Amino acid sequence: MKYPVTFLPQNIVTHAPEGTTVFNAANWAGLPIDSTCGGRGTCGKCKVRLVRGADGVSEADHRFIAEAELAAGWRLSCRAAVHGECVAEVPRLMSSPKAALLGYGQHVLLDPNVAKVYLKLDEPTLEDQRGDLTRLLDALRVEGWDVRPDPALWRALPGVLRDSDWTVTAVVVGDELIAVEPGDTSAEAYGVAVDVGTTTVVAAVVNLMTGAVVAIKSTLNGQAAFGADVISRASHVMADPGGLTVLHERIVATLNALVAELCAQAGVRPEQIYEAVAVGNATMLHLLLGITPEPISVAPFIPAVDGPVTVAAADFDLALHPRARLGLLPHLGAYVGADIVSGVLATGLVRNPDDRLRLYIDVGTNGEIVLGSRARALATAAPAGPAFEGAQIRCGMRASDGAIEGVRIEPQGAGAVRLQVIGGGHLAPIGLCGSGLIDAVAELINVGLVDSSGRLLTPAAARAAGQPSELVERLVTVDGVRAFLLSAPGQNIVLTQTDIRALQFAKGAISAGVHVLLDAMGVTPDDVYEVLLAGSFGSYINPASARTIGLVPQVPVDRIVAVGNAAGEGAKMCLLSFREREAAHQLPGFIDYLELSGRPDFNDIFMEVLAFPPPAGAPPVVRRQ
Amino acid sequence: MKYPVTFLPQNIVTHAPEGTTVFNAANWAGLPIDSTCGGRGTCGKCKVRLVRGADGVSEADHRFIAEAELAAGWRLSCRAAVHGECVAEVPRLMSSPKAALLGYGQHVLLDPNVAKVYLKLDEPTLEDQRGDLTRLLDALRVEGWDVRPDPALWRALPGVLRDSDWTVTAVVVGDELIAVEPGDTSAEAYGVAVDVGTTTVVAAVVNLMTGAVVAIKSTLNGQAAFGADVISRASHVMADPGGLTVLHERIVATLNALVAELCAQAGVRPEQIYEAVAVGNATMLHLLLGITPEPISVAPFIPAVDGPVTVAAADFDLALHPRARLGLLPHLGAYVGADIVSGVLATGLVRNPDDRLRLYIDVGTNGEIVLGSRARALATAAPAGPAFEGAQIRCGMRASDGAIEGVRIEPQGAGAVRLQVIGGGHLAPIGLCGSGLIDAVAELINVGLVDSSGRLLTPAAARAAGQPSELVERLVTVDGVRAFLLSAPGQNIVLTQTDIRALQFAKGAISAGVHVLLDAMGVTPDDVYEVLLAGSFGSYINPASARTIGLVPQVPVDRIVAVGNAAGEGAKMCLLSFREREAAHQLPGFIDYLELSGRPDFNDIFMEVLAFPPPAGAPPVVRRQ
Repeated sequence: MKYPVTFLPQNIVTHAPEGTTVFNAANWAGLPIDSTCGGRGTCGKCKVRLVRGADGVSEADHRFIAEAELAAGWRLSCRAAVHGECVAEVPRLMSSPKAALLGYGQHVLLDPNVAKVYLKLDEPTLEDQRGDLTRLLDALRVEGWDVRPDPALWRALPGVLRDSDWTVTAVVVGDELIAVEPGDTSAEAYGVAVDVGTTTVVAAVVNLMTGAVVAIKSTLNGQAAFGADVISRASHVMADPGGLTVLHERIVATLNALVAELCAQAGVRPEQIYEAVAVGNATMLHLLLGITPEPISVAPFIPAVDGPVTVAAADFDLALHPRARLGLLPHLGAYVGADIVSGVLATGLVRNPDDRLRLYIDVGTNGEIVLGSRARALATAAPAGPAFEGAQIRCGMRASDGAIEGVRIEPQGAGAVRLQVIGGGHLAPIGLCGSGLIDAVAELINVGLVDSSGRLLTPAAARAAGQPSELVERLVTVDGVRAFLLSAPGQNIVLTQTDIRALQFAKGAISAGVHVLLDAMGVTPDDVYEVLLAGSFGSYINPASARTIGLVPQVPVDRIVAVGNAAGEGAKMCLLSFREREAAHQLPGFIDYLELSGRPDFNDIFMEVLAFPPPAGAPPVVRRQ
Repeated sequence: MKYPVTFLPQNIVTHAPEGTTVFNAANWAGLPIDSTCGGRGTCGKCKVRLVRGADGVSEADHRFIAEAELAAGWRLSCRAAVHGECVAEVPRLMSSPKAALLGYGQHVLLDPNVAKVYLKLDEPTLEDQRGDLTRLLDALRVEGWDVRPDPALWRALPGVLRDSDWTVTAVVVGDELIAVEPGDTSAEAYGVAVDVGTTTVVAAVVNLMTGAVVAIKSTLNGQAAFGADVISRASHVMADPGGLTVLHERIVATLNALVAELCAQAGVRPEQIYEAVAVGNATMLHLLLGITPEPISVAPFIPAVDGPVTVAAADFDLALHPRARLGLLPHLGAYVGADIVSGVLATGLVRNPDDRLRLYIDVGTNGEIVLGSRARALATAAPAGPAFEGAQIRCGMRASDGAIEGVRIEPQGAGAVRLQVIGGGHLAPIGLCGSGLIDAVAELINVGLVDSSGRLLTPAAARAAGQPSELVERLVTVDGVRAFLLSAPGQNIVLTQTDIRALQFAKGAISAGVHVLLDAMGVTPDDVYEVLLAGSFGSYINPASARTIGLVPQVPVDRIVAVGNAAGEGAKMCLLSFREREAAHQLPGFIDYLELSGRPDFNDIFMEVLAFPPPAGAPPVVRRQ
């Protein structure tokens, strides 16, 4: 149930689900209301006048708003929930809040979940015998902070207060008081945003006061020795009684080493990191929490914890501030995880005011797909298999030095086949990675050597079709299988008919996933305005080639955009803005997840989309020679 | 700021402070409103119709009450706060809630903070892929429980759910889900109420389903080796760098041994104890939490933590359920601790509908005093010194076998002095404990051998006053000090003039404290209706003697009542009723604490009350013979 909420004087209208706060609705509509507590009802700054829809008066309202104002409809927007049509008058911002451009063009208000509050406490006397904690909490309340103190800080409290002459800085994360530091340390607060990939882990240490990334680095996930993909990691847990502990310890060790290195680089102490936000697929985040991923990996694919999570980082052995918090974003499903939620947030997929349908695809062993606009969104995961990672491809390899990552075929002239090799042109190619594979097949389609059924022409058929001899000579047979020689003859790097089929199945799976979502939404591929390719693999795919092989719908090439590590960007946004985190937490309620396994129509759709699309972009000259 | 709240149809009126919920106000007025969630806004059962004062509509109201009903003033009473005059129509109880008689005649609704919820979960399918935790929390929400899951239970969750065929019992403490047990264990839940005394620790294991105490036991506080009173314990912490750790470990070991013994006796496993409620003085509870009591023991006497506390019992090494909660009641001041708050709760001192002033006194090294009715209450602590414990008394001893605990002087006949000895009449007396000391002095006043200034008559003066020779012969001199021989001549147990002075100072301090409170309230001793003597020492004091020496005001003897271990009773009430615990938490806001140290008028008042009162109850025959 959604209701229209109108903001005056701007006359901006948004539709908010029942129960949303006016504060969050405004933020979602791109109209951030002033607040220092981030919408927790403690600072009293987010007052609006509800011209319509002002039914309740909360405790916090009573605390901050006088009776006459209440009668006139003034409310704290963070306490006023939408239960029908609402019209809210928003006063002009009193202060101009700091903001940063993050993610894929998202304007993010700096409003972190970590706050440092400098306090000069009254010294106790016989006339004022409040306990240390009460004194501290009272002073925080005066500053607008109503917090729960972490019991672990109580023991140190009497000493810290007295040694610092009652002048301290309180560290608040969310609604929890996690530390009391002597003196004024309010200028320094850091957080860390982590993207836990199955292969690669990326961490960024962020200055929470300025929004600046002070250090960023990626490293291999220390679990790599136990298999390349989530299934092999889960299998190790199932096969070995100690496996869960080992995998948990490996990822924790990876993160701790990474954070230590980043801290050294940026001149930050790990104890100055008060919060971590981590994203990743469901299996990775389960292993980070030390929870078995087994039920995720077998039907009906159930995570133990799919909602948003806030825990004490130390309980999971992360070496940050001893009472730092760790936040994990929610998952949409067992195979569309927090990394995708984070990416959707970072790209503004479901909040873009232009109401156009966009497609978010993270290509990998599992292709995660989200289709949506701010009106509606759907998500699914398609089992693409390992072809995109270069596995089960005759000359396939990972994207590392010597891998062919780009292929161009220009039929006229001796340089007919041009290869782009990772590490530079001076390296001899030693294999073919995912993006090279896509390029190679796309180019063969473009020049007409692969037909839309996916068949590689025989030399005779190619010659009959008027293909230049430079290309016909490259049509060879390897171990009885037709193939195309990509490299110079001595290097023997070939693309076989089997490889083409493997790629066809992989892109077919993702394409089928896309079609299931399009069908469920009642739209056609032509309704897709933009395709966002996420993840590191997405950054290397040639958009034109992706379109040629039918991995993505036939949109203009300039609207197929690589958005890079959108997951990591989203994690940073959540670290720097509590409102953005709240928005991310609400995404699973907004995006419907469709499970493909066991869907009776999936195989039909898969068969339909298996063929390559007609080569609209191919130069007609080549094909008619 | 207090407002009248009227409950219909009973027409009961109570005065509730601004912000109190209608639910709590009703409970306080002795009108428990039906509820299964105990006032957390999740069960929807506590609906009332606010005929007056219905200003707000909360989220929870929207969830449970239809629009038409809301318009008619229906609200959840646990969400409706008092912000002005209120009139509430309370529907008749749908179910008749279980209750128990606890404390000093308090009718307590069984409404523990621990709940067990038996759940048959839907098995996950491809159509219902909610995560384990989400599935569990959803099912709990259907049953009216909106809880925060303890992260420590997540790891076990996938196994427990699958091994138990999705049939489990959720254990909820407060708003936290602390355990998920396989199968139906909803019939068994236990708690432990603990009174941490400086000398003695009392624990009771309570069946939370029935309210029955299944085992109770007291033992010596394992810290006893470090001094008899709180000052010597605090001194040890200050003197020895490892002292705090040792004292913390001692009290934890004492509690764990006690609980283990109680469990063995009652056939309960410690893991079936899901909650502990502990009371005690501020120093004891600080040591239990491992916090230094140093600032409590030096001016201006400041506890680190004086508010109510809820922590994980395991974080403080208590061996109960691994995720059991430990609740500590708040303190009124550094020397009027949670034990007194608990005692005030158990005796109904500030909620008795008769509006009469009552005086609560816990006699000990520090005498804790509360004076009040449901209109107003004041508290203070008076430094009585060790006389009541038999210390610094010539023949003084603790209340153990051989101690004289009662004295009667009947001047006529050979049995003029009759002694009551702990352990029975066959034991020869070996000393005098506190209650014996009070009795002895009171009887000497009654027979006229001690005058109101506290002077023991010389033999000559006694003979001149017509005292019988049996008594005059007992007036002796010991080491140059006048004394009265209590025992048979060979046993040589005497009460010296110095002892009488020591008692006089001790009772003078407490009496001065009482007078400070009476003055502050603008009343006289005649306005005191009843005196409640709390603590084990209070149970042994002869009420008439206490009155004779002026330890308590001159009220009729039958209104001087020993209320026993009221602190322990209050802890049990808090364990069995969340409403009672809430009431206890609110007591520090209701009872004003007066600090005696540094008060300029204290010494004047002390001097005024030092004399013994005129012996109104003494038989006139004796004094005129």
